[in-house]
Amino acid sequence: MSLLVIGTVAFDAIETPFGKTDKIVGGAATFIGLSASYFTHDINLVSVVGDDFPSDAIEMMKNRGINTEGLQIKQGEKTFFWSGKYHNDMNSRDTLETQLNVLATFDPTIPEKYQDCEFLMLGNLAPSVQHQVLDRLKNRPKLVVLDTMNFWMDIALPELTSLLKRVDVLTINDEEARQLSGEYSLVKASQKILAMGPKYLIIKKGEHGALLFNKDQVFFAPALPLEDVFDPTGAGDSFAGGFIGYIASTKDISFDNLKRAVIFGSAMASFSVEKFGTERIQNLNSKEVDARVKQFIDLVQFDISLV
Amino acid sequence: MSLLVIGTVAFDAIETPFGKTDKIVGGAATFIGLSASYFTHDINLVSVVGDDFPSDAIEMMKNRGINTEGLQIKQGEKTFFWSGKYHNDMNSRDTLETQLNVLATFDPTIPEKYQDCEFLMLGNLAPSVQHQVLDRLKNRPKLVVLDTMNFWMDIALPELTSLLKRVDVLTINDEEARQLSGEYSLVKASQKILAMGPKYLIIKKGEHGALLFNKDQVFFAPALPLEDVFDPTGAGDSFAGGFIGYIASTKDISFDNLKRAVIFGSAMASFSVEKFGTERIQNLNSKEVDARVKQFIDLVQFDISLV
Repeated sequence: MSLLVIGTVAFDAIETPFGKTDKIVGGAATFIGLSASYFTHDINLVSVVGDDFPSDAIEMMKNRGINTEGLQIKQGEKTFFWSGKYHNDMNSRDTLETQLNVLATFDPTIPEKYQDCEFLMLGNLAPSVQHQVLDRLKNRPKLVVLDTMNFWMDIALPELTSLLKRVDVLTINDEEARQLSGEYSLVKASQKILAMGPKYLIIKKGEHGALLFNKDQVFFAPALPLEDVFDPTGAGDSFAGGFIGYIASTKDISFDNLKRAVIFGSAMASFSVEKFGTERIQNLNSKEVDARVKQFIDLVQFDISLV
Repeated sequence: MSLLVIGTVAFDAIETPFGKTDKIVGGAATFIGLSASYFTHDINLVSVVGDDFPSDAIEMMKNRGINTEGLQIKQGEKTFFWSGKYHNDMNSRDTLETQLNVLATFDPTIPEKYQDCEFLMLGNLAPSVQHQVLDRLKNRPKLVVLDTMNFWMDIALPELTSLLKRVDVLTINDEEARQLSGEYSLVKASQKILAMGPKYLIIKKGEHGALLFNKDQVFFAPALPLEDVFDPTGAGDSFAGGFIGYIASTKDISFDNLKRAVIFGSAMASFSVEKFGTERIQNLNSKEVDARVKQFIDLVQFDISLV
C-alpha cells in the first residue's frame, strides 16, 4: 500500500529576480515527499544527509507523515549542497555551486518495513543508484516512476538507457525529451522514448504545462497562469510528488487516473513556485489543494457537443 | 447576421526548414475568411489587390462563400508582397522583403450591403485603416475583434491605443502582450491591457496554446501537439477566422461561447500549419473540422470530482 520515495535531501541557496536565500532545506525527495503527503500518509523515504542537517527539518517531514527510517545521517559529513541563480525569465538558471558531500558515496539502504511498497518514485539521482534501489527491492512495485535530468544523459547514458527498461513512467522536461530522443517534435520524441521502455512519458514544459503520453494517447495539462513565479526550484519534484501521491492514494494506474494525477501534480507545482524552497508546500491544507485543483478545472473546461 | 472581415489579401514567399515556395496567395483576410467559411456562409471581405492577383484565387474565395464585392482591384498596381524565412524552431522568423504596393494607399470602402454586419474582424493592418473601417460603419457591430502586431506598437502606438477603446476583443501574441503592457507576467499583462479598453484579450502562444482573459476569468486552450509544423504563416489568422466564424454562426458572445470559439480557432490554426500557405484550410470538410475539435476535447478532458 505504501509509497517509497528515493532522492536527495539537501541544502539549496537560491537567487531569483525576487530575492535570494541562505542555505535552505531542499532536495528532490524533500519536495516529492512533502507534496505527496497531501494525498497519502504512508510515505517511506530513502536518502542521505550529513550531521549538519537540522533535526527540526526531519521532524517537519515526520509531522507530515513521512517515515524517515531510511534517511541515513552520516556523522562527520556534510549534506549535499546546490546553489543556483535564475535568469529574469525564470525558465533558465545557472548552477553556481554543487557540493556532492554525502551524495558522493550514497549507498541506498531499504529498511525491511519498506519492502512491501506498491508505488516507487525514483527522484533525480545517479542512474546507478536508482538501479541499486530496484535491485534491492524483493518485489517489483506496481508502478515505478523515474525522474532524471540532462546531466545524466550527458555522463551516464548507458546506465540511464538500461534503467528506462525497468520503469513504468518517465518524467523529464521538453529539452531533455529532445536530447534523449534526438527529435525536435515532442510528438516524435515521445514515440521514440516510449520505445526505449517506459509505458508512460510525462514531458514537463514549465510555465507551458505538461504532456502525458502512452503509445496511443496524449493528455495535456496546463500550468496555472500565475501573477509571479517566485522560485521555480522544486517545481518538477512537487509535480512528481502530487502525481505519485495521488496515484498511491487511489491505487488506480489506468490512463484516466494518470490524467487526474497529472492535474494534481500540476496543482502542487503551482503552489511550490509561489515561495522560496519548500515553504509553500509544507504549509498547505486540503481545502487549499482542492481550491487550486478547481482552478485547473475552470481553466480548461469547455463544453462542445459535436453532432 | 453577417461577418465583415478586413485585412490584407497578399502574395507570400515562404522558406521553412521543410522547403520554400514561390509567390503564393496569402494575407490576413484570406486566411481569416477561408477559416471562418467552415462556420458561416455570410462573410463580407474588404481588402485591396493589384491587377497581378490571380482571378482563380478570388473565385476560390467566392466558392467558399466569401463575398468579394469589397475587394478593390487596382489596375496597373501590384499586390502587397511579403517574404520570410522561419528559423529551425519555427517560433521565430526573419522578414526578407516587404513590398507594400497597393497597401500603401489603401482606402477601405464598405459596400452598402455590408453595412448591417453584426460581427467585425479587423485583421492586422495599420491602426489608422482599422479606425477608418469603424468610422465608416453606420452601426457599431455586436462584436469587434482586433488583431494587430508589434510593428504597429513600435510605429503607431497612439493610434493603436485609441483603437483599443473601440474594440471588444484583442488578439495578440505573448511577446506583443508583454510589449504593450510592459509586464512580463501574462496575468499582469492581461489586466493592464484589459484596462486599456477591450473586454476580452486573447494571448496566442503558438505551440504553447492560447489564453482568453476577461477581467475576472481566464481560459486556456492548448495547441495540438503535432508531429511537424510545416509552415506557421497564417496560423494566427486561421485562429482568428475560426474564432470569429464560430461566434458569427452561434451569435452568442457569452464567455462560455468565447471559450468554445477559442477551441474552434485553435483547431483551424492546427490545420493551417500542416501545409504551405492556405493549401490546407481551403480544402477541408466539416467532418475533418469536427474530428480535429474532438482531438482537442480528448487532449484536455479529465474527470475530477472534488467532494
